[in-house]
Amino acid sequence: MKKVLFATSALVLSAGFASAEVAVSGDGRMGVIYDGNDAQFSSRARVKFTLTGESDAGLSFGGSFRVDQENFGTTRAASNGTRGAVWVSGTYGKLSMGDTLSASEAAIGDLYEVGYTEGSFADDVEEISYLTGDGADRDQGSNILYEYTINQISLYASATDGSSNSWYADTYGANNTDDDNAYALAAKYSADSWWAALGYAKRGDADEISLAGEGKFNNFSVKGVYVKYSDNYVVEPVFGQSHTSGDEGVVGFDAGVGTNVKLDNTIGLAAAYQMDAIAVKGFYRKDKYKSDADSQSFDSFGIGADYDLGGGAVLAGGIIDTDYLNDTVLDMGIKFKF
Amino acid sequence: MKKVLFATSALVLSAGFASAEVAVSGDGRMGVIYDGNDAQFSSRARVKFTLTGESDAGLSFGGSFRVDQENFGTTRAASNGTRGAVWVSGTYGKLSMGDTLSASEAAIGDLYEVGYTEGSFADDVEEISYLTGDGADRDQGSNILYEYTINQISLYASATDGSSNSWYADTYGANNTDDDNAYALAAKYSADSWWAALGYAKRGDADEISLAGEGKFNNFSVKGVYVKYSDNYVVEPVFGQSHTSGDEGVVGFDAGVGTNVKLDNTIGLAAAYQMDAIAVKGFYRKDKYKSDADSQSFDSFGIGADYDLGGGAVLAGGIIDTDYLNDTVLDMGIKFKF
Amino acid sequence: MKKVLFATSALVLSAGFASAEVAVSGDGRMGVIYDGNDAQFSSRARVKFTLTGESDAGLSFGGSFRVDQENFGTTRAASNGTRGAVWVSGTYGKLSMGDTLSASEAAIGDLYEVGYTEGSFADDVEEISYLTGDGADRDQGSNILYEYTINQISLYASATDGSSNSWYADTYGANNTDDDNAYALAAKYSADSWWAALGYAKRGDADEISLAGEGKFNNFSVKGVYVKYSDNYVVEPVFGQSHTSGDEGVVGFDAGVGTNVKLDNTIGLAAAYQMDAIAVKGFYRKDKYKSDADSQSFDSFGIGADYDLGGGAVLAGGIIDTDYLNDTVLDMGIKFKF
Repeated sequence: MKKVLFATSALVLSAGFASAEVAVSGDGRMGVIYDGNDAQFSSRARVKFTLTGESDAGLSFGGSFRVDQENFGTTRAASNGTRGAVWVSGTYGKLSMGDTLSASEAAIGDLYEVGYTEGSFADDVEEISYLTGDGADRDQGSNILYEYTINQISLYASATDGSSNSWYADTYGANNTDDDNAYALAAKYSADSWWAALGYAKRGDADEISLAGEGKFNNFSVKGVYVKYSDNYVVEPVFGQSHTSGDEGVVGFDAGVGTNVKLDNTIGLAAAYQMDAIAVKGFYRKDKYKSDADSQSFDSFGIGADYDLGGGAVLAGGIIDTDYLNDTVLDMGIKFKF
Repeated sequence: MKKVLFATSALVLSAGFASAEVAVSGDGRMGVIYDGNDAQFSSRARVKFTLTGESDAGLSFGGSFRVDQENFGTTRAASNGTRGAVWVSGTYGKLSMGDTLSASEAAIGDLYEVGYTEGSFADDVEEISYLTGDGADRDQGSNILYEYTINQISLYASATDGSSNSWYADTYGANNTDDDNAYALAAKYSADSWWAALGYAKRGDADEISLAGEGKFNNFSVKGVYVKYSDNYVVEPVFGQSHTSGDEGVVGFDAGVGTNVKLDNTIGLAAAYQMDAIAVKGFYRKDKYKSDADSQSFDSFGIGADYDLGGGAVLAGGIIDTDYLNDTVLDMGIKFKF
Repeated sequence: MKKVLFATSALVLSAGFASAEVAVSGDGRMGVIYDGNDAQFSSRARVKFTLTGESDAGLSFGGSFRVDQENFGTTRAASNGTRGAVWVSGTYGKLSMGDTLSASEAAIGDLYEVGYTEGSFADDVEEISYLTGDGADRDQGSNILYEYTINQISLYASATDGSSNSWYADTYGANNTDDDNAYALAAKYSADSWWAALGYAKRGDADEISLAGEGKFNNFSVKGVYVKYSDNYVVEPVFGQSHTSGDEGVVGFDAGVGTNVKLDNTIGLAAAYQMDAIAVKGFYRKDKYKSDADSQSFDSFGIGADYDLGGGAVLAGGIIDTDYLNDTVLDMGIKFKF
């Protein structure tokens, strides 16, 4: 006996419905990934909950998380603030808490995603390695992000609390090690067809300055991102996230690079062209690492095309060549929105 | 493409809808916890499913669990009866199976929760340590609870099955150790403005007698709970649960207490005052432990205030001082219902 | 504030609703299992999401998974294709990807389930041990299944990709071992009151030929399945799944059987009789194992009755006697659909 959820928000806005709501949406994808050696089937299905409400005085509040963002007892749990987020929003801006973006990432974002797996087939190398937010500090539990927009200017501030997640541990003297407090500040100016943004972040001794802009001209979009780091030590170069989550996609440096390697800067460029149902997208990224002895760069290129089939289905394929994978990888498939 | 779930049960009761339904609701919270040493951000978002149906003969049945209560393969899985519950309900009462309360807890409940984390910021020290139910015997799989109300009297009975969860293991001779069978019985008398209840529980050699009452007079509520245990051995004093789940919040005894420590009794008092949108709540609790050599008491106090913002949002803060944490802890934030 | 999901698909089909939808349904059960030594309570509650959409050109697409099929980071995750499935469907048939059935199992299926736990109380001994699909190759990530029906003939093809799930691992040289590619082909002829099907599957060196038919005559249903394996080595006899998932239900052979044991063939018979609200069902199954030295058979019998209470509730009980459990086990309880 299946229950079908209605799909028009218009009905919900009519009188007689309570203001607090739970919306359920979903996505999926299926296709083939060529990983450099083998072709592999890859599919997924996901469901997302979006919670919204409004207080008597007009304060908006809400939250959201996906089913796969709730693994109780891990650092992947919406029920303890390490995934998903909750927020309040009013005339003084929006304050979010949970697995939030950093101010820099909220203002600037990442390069354009290609392929039906939206970059996952190359471990999301289109994602800029921001120092904090978006996963870098989940061991500290909930992060916060504040956003405020006045006319064409948006301001962002984010922070962690500098303590491990368990708040009883302090007393018992166990499990609660102080952690590097991290914060970020960013500003963005948005005009009709372009925006520019500047961000600053600090995490322990490391800091990050980020500068980016994006323009849309007729059917073209272009985006550029430059990030300069200081004292951002890495064990090995990682991508898609800051060095604090070294468990994803690492490769070795050249022998001459030596020790004390730091990610020094990232240059990223992305471009897209949209024509009716077809979108062609691409990105280029150069990450420069410096050590006491030498330096080494990692280049990544990606190109892909989307074909919108309507009704929530998009045919998509991508090719990414990256020094991180030391290989060229492809994907081709369909992605769905429900 | 988000699906919005309708919010009026009135519509659902009209003709033409099947009787079996799945309702989706949610909650969230965000704020700051001072753990005695550090201020920490703490937030969460959760979604709950409530399943309801009715047979042709008018027997009601249903079930409920939250997304975070489904971690397959653990003792936190609605899909194997260790979280959430299912039930049937008719003229002969309601029978629930799953992660049910004990009879005593169903009749009496806990002290009043304070703070936007509803006591979690002090590890739920407002919860009485009932011998069985509500988590004490999840290793035995599904528990049962029977409730029957006739006029002003409600009767409760609960039990575990005394065997580990895997029902093939017996044959293979592995993983299936007999466990202490636990059961509880309780009765409650409810008048217009007050109730009184008496409960008895047994778990292995330990037993528990509980006595409680609550009264509501104009804007005031008061509640008192007394629990007397026999042979309720604890390794170290724990709270929020019986000694069988020793993995949460334990602290040491004074040196003189020695070995063979038993939780002997708990006295709990709670009071609340409601005025328009504001509620002020507090509790006091004294747990007395006895050993061969000596005895030791643990005192806990809590006080908090809620301010109802309407629409499902409540501003709340609390302070708890407890010998268990050996510290004073605070929380302050907003909690949401969706 | 609970949200109630509407239950009539009729409303959803009317104009004005987007084609992409998320449906939420649920099931539950509660009762007692006698495991041969002890009576144990057993209950569960589950929720399922069904995602459906249609492209502008009329291509149907969708997906489905249950909450308990999403444990991120395991081989039980709809979000990485190891549980649940997504599909596209049009005039050229239906292509599914994820935790799909093999072609043989899609055409033939299993024997009839008995009891309120639908065979779980005896580890699903009514399930035929197909070589591939339905869990046998989840370590390879998403599987595919293609189904096409023309008039009374249905054709099925399924395959795995022969590589472990992580598609970056190839490049890094870790975690990605080549695995046995598995595939299956099947055909089914369906008349009004009966069907017959033939399947072939190969998994590494092992292969499987399956032959089955089912007939419905008035209130009677009968089904027969014969599966012949070659080189299907097993460490110990397992049931409910092929030998690749040796973690469920294994027992020892007679001493004389020796080593190099292969599952040689399975004969299964099932029958059911439906009369108004009552259904009586039963099955018999014989699995023959051969070794270098000898052979040994495992017999399993099951019988059960369902009584439909209406509204989604069914009273059910079953008895299974199987050489695998070396015991007779029973269950009795209620199962629910929401």
